[in-house]
Amino acid sequence: MTAAHVQQPDIQQPELEPWGPSEVPTTALLTDHYELTMLRAALQSGTADRRCTFELFGRRLPDGRRYGVVAGVGRALRALSHFRFDDESRQFLLDRGVVDRQTADWLADFRFSGQIWGYAEGDIYFPGSPLLIVESTFAEAVLLETLMLSIYNHDSAIASAASRMTAVADGRPCLEMGARRTQELSAVAAARAAYIAGFSGTSSLEAGRRYGVPTIGTAAHAFTLLHDSEEDAFRAQIQAMGTDTTLLVDTYDVDTAVRTAVRLTDGKIGAVRLDSGDLPVLAKHVRTLLDDLGAKDTTIIVTSDLDEWQIAALAGAPVDGYGVGTALVTGSGHPTSGFVYKMVARATSDEPDAPLVHVAKKSTGKATVGGRKYPWRRFDAAGVAETELIGIDKDPVLEHGRPLLVPLVKDGEIVGREPLDAARDRHTRARAELPLDALKMSRGEPVIETVFV
Amino acid sequence: MTAAHVQQPDIQQPELEPWGPSEVPTTALLTDHYELTMLRAALQSGTADRRCTFELFGRRLPDGRRYGVVAGVGRALRALSHFRFDDESRQFLLDRGVVDRQTADWLADFRFSGQIWGYAEGDIYFPGSPLLIVESTFAEAVLLETLMLSIYNHDSAIASAASRMTAVADGRPCLEMGARRTQELSAVAAARAAYIAGFSGTSSLEAGRRYGVPTIGTAAHAFTLLHDSEEDAFRAQIQAMGTDTTLLVDTYDVDTAVRTAVRLTDGKIGAVRLDSGDLPVLAKHVRTLLDDLGAKDTTIIVTSDLDEWQIAALAGAPVDGYGVGTALVTGSGHPTSGFVYKMVARATSDEPDAPLVHVAKKSTGKATVGGRKYPWRRFDAAGVAETELIGIDKDPVLEHGRPLLVPLVKDGEIVGREPLDAARDRHTRARAELPLDALKMSRGEPVIETVFV
Repeated sequence: MTAAHVQQPDIQQPELEPWGPSEVPTTALLTDHYELTMLRAALQSGTADRRCTFELFGRRLPDGRRYGVVAGVGRALRALSHFRFDDESRQFLLDRGVVDRQTADWLADFRFSGQIWGYAEGDIYFPGSPLLIVESTFAEAVLLETLMLSIYNHDSAIASAASRMTAVADGRPCLEMGARRTQELSAVAAARAAYIAGFSGTSSLEAGRRYGVPTIGTAAHAFTLLHDSEEDAFRAQIQAMGTDTTLLVDTYDVDTAVRTAVRLTDGKIGAVRLDSGDLPVLAKHVRTLLDDLGAKDTTIIVTSDLDEWQIAALAGAPVDGYGVGTALVTGSGHPTSGFVYKMVARATSDEPDAPLVHVAKKSTGKATVGGRKYPWRRFDAAGVAETELIGIDKDPVLEHGRPLLVPLVKDGEIVGREPLDAARDRHTRARAELPLDALKMSRGEPVIETVFV
Repeated sequence: MTAAHVQQPDIQQPELEPWGPSEVPTTALLTDHYELTMLRAALQSGTADRRCTFELFGRRLPDGRRYGVVAGVGRALRALSHFRFDDESRQFLLDRGVVDRQTADWLADFRFSGQIWGYAEGDIYFPGSPLLIVESTFAEAVLLETLMLSIYNHDSAIASAASRMTAVADGRPCLEMGARRTQELSAVAAARAAYIAGFSGTSSLEAGRRYGVPTIGTAAHAFTLLHDSEEDAFRAQIQAMGTDTTLLVDTYDVDTAVRTAVRLTDGKIGAVRLDSGDLPVLAKHVRTLLDDLGAKDTTIIVTSDLDEWQIAALAGAPVDGYGVGTALVTGSGHPTSGFVYKMVARATSDEPDAPLVHVAKKSTGKATVGGRKYPWRRFDAAGVAETELIGIDKDPVLEHGRPLLVPLVKDGEIVGREPLDAARDRHTRARAELPLDALKMSRGEPVIETVFV
């Protein structure tokens, strides 16, 4: 590696803080059965210790997308630190006949001891970008396949959708409210990924506790229905939360609700939320009504089944924030990123210093580019990204470009931890480097080309 | 409730077994911020103890689907039993200003103490089917909203897609292999949901340990690439796993691989797996080759990007099993079920014996049917389902039909646990009750109509 790869001034190393009781204590069985049977067969045949390079990448972007966003790095490192085959896990594998005693004993001592390089979290990726490069023995590297793919495939899909939303929202805050529409722990990961891609807050309390994402929320329709009148409900909410709260005004009649909200707060109600109807028209109507009633500082939040196209359609409406649910947590049509994890090089023998050779399968439509990759993003004279340039087995070292790999794990030690805001800030910078076409909502090709050299 | 609702002979009550270290110890913060602020405001205004009925239902099926499959019931009950605001959770909520001291103290003692009825796991549902009915105080019922929705929305989406796949596979085994394409813990839930809907096994080891789903898997392309030759790799796998293993034969040349597999095992190789190419043509070719080589008992497993339409297209091909990944774990185009959780009735005052009145919001396009529901599936003379008949505030008690609610929680005690195979068996029976049109792959309307009476 050149020095350019190693220097990453914005990678900090915060202390590893406990996440508390809702964390999963071991991640080792979040793994496919066949990783263990491959390990078992390789231990038996003597090939388990062959040095290998594996790569995590996507063959293409989700159909029509211009760029993708890397997310999951911090979660993957956390999961790696908890990847331990404890007694219970090993006993399960033995009882089920997945592994033999030799393999179970090997697993008892397992700690990943190799090197992992990867794209930094929040950065942009394109087809063929090597998001992770794992250099280790076959035995160690193959075990990580499923867990790394699960985390990257999910988190990057959410971040990639979220980035399009925050781009088109153009500075207006986007709020993540999709927990109820996806699996309960995916929801927590989705809130984190959305924050990296520029969302301002989340409804998920666990995302607040675990990752420090700001949490938001006030009341649902049920709260209004609980009370004998909408006015009673509003009064109760204002009493508990103060006038700077957000009142949901579409349970019955919107105009009546807005008038009540303004009256109860002397025009000081913080915000009103619209969760149904023709939002561009309704927002304009409510803005006029609020202004007429003297509540000029009251903001309008909209929330009903928004996606990046709905947000675009609301660009001209007097809206101050977008709550996004289903479309965000399902990746807006692309709930997975389609990443794969492939061996791209291996040692010619079991000797520790045996040279590595390229390997690549030839399966129809699934061919792999062999060799260790050195990815750079090349810029034109104006500083705009123009090529994803990927060196094979050699570092291209560009004058106008930046290297894309950062060290994540060195000799088994996790070195790539960083605060979540570092990833969020990086995303803002990396997206700003792209050609303007990247932000088009219409379907198209990746905004820059990937070139292997 | 009538006796008919209470009698459910196939609901058993197994012991609650520990799932081990990968279980999440508390689920209380897998909750939206606004549930807690509503609680806080209701405690302050004195409405928190009003008796309420909440309902979890879908307004429609995913576009084009004929029926949906209920899944997540067992997970939801498990999550409910772990729904505790421990010291750390409460401190977080206080530190962030989500709740005040009064609310935090209330949460310390929180145990759900109400009644929950629901559709049994594995049963079929239609638009408007009340999948869960929660009868409790507002404070208790509102806290469950996000967690119940997350679990039901995800698990039922997976089971609904899986059921279409097992239906069209028509007895050939379907194997769940999608862990790598979805969030790492969604993967475990997806494997469980797929098993309920008739899948035979999963690649996910954690699903094996946690839920007892059979796990399957042998080797990936990387195992072949690791070795100096394909023959070396096959020999290593056979030595470790026996001849009854499944060899992946498309890393290089399929014909050569099949010949090698047969030669190394004297024609006794258990199965070959095809993971690329034009599968209907290739499967036929490989079947002929295997037969010509005398390996007539060797089976063929196919795995490349299958969904229900691909499985249908392979109906005439000599295929013995389907491995399904991405399409399964993403709900085959519908990654969420679109369920909502709405208040449908509440007491007229805070008195414990105050009568309940219907409530329903009037938001455009999101109207709710108020009242406590009593759903039945009505059959025609031939025993085929013809209507989802839902009584409002009264039990219709049909002669040719079955009641759809089972008791899940009584006075806070979980009574609805059952072995996973009970749900799987129920799904087989419930799907067999539907009109044949239910199994059409083409897009269409729900196969029976929902009628409120």
